[in-house]
Amino acid sequence: MDNITDVTIGPCESSRFIKPKRIYYKQNGVDKIWDAMKVHDGVAIIIFNSTRENFVFVRQFRPAIYIATAAIEERDGVQMIDTKKYPGHLGLTLELCAGIVDKEKSPSTIAKEEILEECGYDVPLENIIKITSARGGVGTTGSIVHLFYAEVTDAMKTGPGGGLASEGELIDVVEMSIEEGRTMMFDESCNRAHLLIFAVLWFFDSIWKDKPKHASAL
Amino acid sequence: MDNITDVTIGPCESSRFIKPKRIYYKQNGVDKIWDAMKVHDGVAIIIFNSTRENFVFVRQFRPAIYIATAAIEERDGVQMIDTKKYPGHLGLTLELCAGIVDKEKSPSTIAKEEILEECGYDVPLENIIKITSARGGVGTTGSIVHLFYAEVTDAMKTGPGGGLASEGELIDVVEMSIEEGRTMMFDESCNRAHLLIFAVLWFFDSIWKDKPKHASAL
Repeated sequence: MDNITDVTIGPCESSRFIKPKRIYYKQNGVDKIWDAMKVHDGVAIIIFNSTRENFVFVRQFRPAIYIATAAIEERDGVQMIDTKKYPGHLGLTLELCAGIVDKEKSPSTIAKEEILEECGYDVPLENIIKITSARGGVGTTGSIVHLFYAEVTDAMKTGPGGGLASEGELIDVVEMSIEEGRTMMFDESCNRAHLLIFAVLWFFDSIWKDKPKHASAL
Repeated sequence: MDNITDVTIGPCESSRFIKPKRIYYKQNGVDKIWDAMKVHDGVAIIIFNSTRENFVFVRQFRPAIYIATAAIEERDGVQMIDTKKYPGHLGLTLELCAGIVDKEKSPSTIAKEEILEECGYDVPLENIIKITSARGGVGTTGSIVHLFYAEVTDAMKTGPGGGLASEGELIDVVEMSIEEGRTMMFDESCNRAHLLIFAVLWFFDSIWKDKPKHASAL
């Protein structure tokens, strides 16, 4: 997973994934210009396994996180990152199971598919509860992420998860105890996004405090 | 604020603000490529006015939010958005007071400056409490936002806020009651980012429940 080597950075004049648009507009009659990108909306799911009373997250190596942390050097005219100084684990990111909305399917259906692909649980649609939708960003991208809560059991586990190898996905399923989740919310050494910490706090506030606990958790 | 007209979209081959990099690397020996951007880290502050017992947020028109909602049409060879069909209020976004870390100053010092510039409160540094730092995104950008809590009083109000007109900023200060804040967290008709709803939920969980209330709030 975090065995990352041979990192170089090249120019990127035209990207299939990052397509800036220049927006010209008047606000109260004053000319303004802003560069922004139109990107796909997404879904994300906070998953609780009620059999084992733990969270189910995923972990991936994220180049965007890695280059935000590592210093880019120039050697022999090539921009690169020294993976001895900046090992690959710096780019590992704890995430909610998530996917993009790019098909003619409802967000909850896409959530169900992502839970199976990434985490290996075949969960009935009625177990997938909407929490809210909010914006991933406001400056450069303003797409919506639809956030769901899904309760799963060991009996729903039908596969290993891990994402689609055909799409080059390499995803670890991470089980985390309730108490580890509580600590992680405020643990800055763990790369995690705003939406994940919101979802975990929401879980404690809306689900966990009223939930009958297993004897072992009391 | 939301009087938006004459919206056109042009090409954006080279942006001062959006600079994609192409990252080449090997993961477990397998060649991979990813496009991402290196962007500034940021600070954001959830502000509570204890004199009036309300939140202090800001509101701005955000082109990235607007184009995520409005349809782009082509008329006479020009890409544009019809502001009759898609009025400017669709781009209004409720936000935490925030700024970018681009100077040789500590995040809490930058937070203090942003509270004064955007909201008009001159708050002592010791009132600015760190909550946590987390990632704004994981796919395209992976920068960190340092999140703070600041308690202010009416006596600290020394100016109108509203941002720096010299930098073209047009920012409304929004006071919101505690109960409005509670509803807003889950109100999808309000454009707001993941970090804002995390911060509000954190406030209820960590500050509000233990705070002595004014008689009027009981």
